Amino acid sequence: MTIENISANKVFGGWQKQYTHQSKTLNCDMRFAIYLPPQASSGEKVPVLYWLSGLTCTDENFMQKAGAFRMAAELGIAIVAPDTSPRGDDVADDDGYDLGKGAGFYVNATQAPWNKHYQMYDYIVKELPALIEASFPVSNKRAISGHSMGGHGALTIAMRNPERYCSMSAFSPICNPVNVPWGQKAFTAYLGKDKSTWQAYDASELMRQATQFLPAKVDQGGADNFLKEQLTPELLEAAAKASSYPLELAIHEGYDHSYYFISSFIEEHLRFHAKHLAK
Amino acid sequence: MTIENISANKVFGGWQKQYTHQSKTLNCDMRFAIYLPPQASSGEKVPVLYWLSGLTCTDENFMQKAGAFRMAAELGIAIVAPDTSPRGDDVADDDGYDLGKGAGFYVNATQAPWNKHYQMYDYIVKELPALIEASFPVSNKRAISGHSMGGHGALTIAMRNPERYCSMSAFSPICNPVNVPWGQKAFTAYLGKDKSTWQAYDASELMRQATQFLPAKVDQGGADNFLKEQLTPELLEAAAKASSYPLELAIHEGYDHSYYFISSFIEEHLRFHAKHLAK
Repeated sequence: MTIENISANKVFGGWQKQYTHQSKTLNCDMRFAIYLPPQASSGEKVPVLYWLSGLTCTDENFMQKAGAFRMAAELGIAIVAPDTSPRGDDVADDDGYDLGKGAGFYVNATQAPWNKHYQMYDYIVKELPALIEASFPVSNKRAISGHSMGGHGALTIAMRNPERYCSMSAFSPICNPVNVPWGQKAFTAYLGKDKSTWQAYDASELMRQATQFLPAKVDQGGADNFLKEQLTPELLEAAAKASSYPLELAIHEGYDHSYYFISSFIEEHLRFHAKHLAK
Repeated sequence: MTIENISANKVFGGWQKQYTHQSKTLNCDMRFAIYLPPQASSGEKVPVLYWLSGLTCTDENFMQKAGAFRMAAELGIAIVAPDTSPRGDDVADDDGYDLGKGAGFYVNATQAPWNKHYQMYDYIVKELPALIEASFPVSNKRAISGHSMGGHGALTIAMRNPERYCSMSAFSPICNPVNVPWGQKAFTAYLGKDKSTWQAYDASELMRQATQFLPAKVDQGGADNFLKEQLTPELLEAAAKASSYPLELAIHEGYDHSYYFISSFIEEHLRFHAKHLAK
């Protein structure tokens, strides 16, 4: 497991760095970004928040736009932002922004041509944390969050692996992908037409059936253009009620789907995760 | 004076909006962005910080990357980010990133073909504030700041118009453009070969000769790749000593020329300006 540093920027006393590595899981070279708070430079092993980005994003969007470092530095939390899909000239792609590169949906694809590289679920659950914990001064205390497609990814990955995470959160997640256009297009391509294979990647389905609970926080903008057609937080809320899942869900009037929304509430998410990472 | 709204994002309880307008000064259509803090929605007239961006930037870079809104909302300060040059198909340009579009250098060009549109000094000093103050719930209390080329712009504009601003600041400014490659290339093109016309746009020269003082704060990253060849803050510091200008200048070890640096210290700049805007 070797990583190669390709950039480093000092920010709020810590360091935002980008690395590349050869991913065995994804069968291609991958890039990720990490924020190491000042505490990581003084011998302390810090916990890690994994941030999963949305459609069309890379490892850079959150780092440049979320305004998360002030609070991450204060709380002593590292943040890891992986890319949103496998990358490279030989990786299958699609003309749409919502399938293929930049749109891995954090699933393990079973269908050709996607199954050769699109194994983002395993990459996020296993390979990436192992790499991070072997390469940086971090503990094995993990939290996970994300935005939109990445919110879907964070919730589903955390609920399927509750022993691996202290807490989960999401901004504007795709809450019920099996029933909305983005999810149906991606799952048909990556998982095939048999919808029974889709359920394991649906946050509302997983929350409805949950018997092990993680602290969960979801924030959604009330003026989000994708709210009704793609995101459907009311279905996640109904699922939480059905299983008595401890979900804190809030709709914020006037806020949209952009990083302006995320930046306004990222401090609350970092404080939420810090509380549970400290336990 | 009419403006057309083209985008709006709620952020930290206020609104980040983009507008277009026909600029008489620049003889073209221009875009700018404004952040209106929550106080502006409750009938209060808020003061304005003008932010001048650096080479290759538009009105968007600061708004997306600086992380300024949390503190602007807390302090009740509007922020206006203009574009960095005239724009449009008939506007003269150059292949270099450091001349022409995206590189107006906040001067009034006197040389063809630049003089038809490149009148950024007058645009920032006169037309834009008049437009802002006629169109939004803002007072005529103004502060000015900027980054790199925009730091040069902020310092020179403030020092030439001390009656119009309460305070000035800059991140990583081009402190002595008449003596560095970026400035010499731009000033030769826009102002001609007679270097006596350049002096009025040189922050170190203006500071050395200043008799009216404004509160001034400059921050510079110690690991900035452009520090020695293009930025030369030691010359601004020497000029401030010569005229006893009240300049607060700090070099921050390890920080580079990016918005990661700006985001780390923008809160200090906003607090600095708020103190003087309140007088």
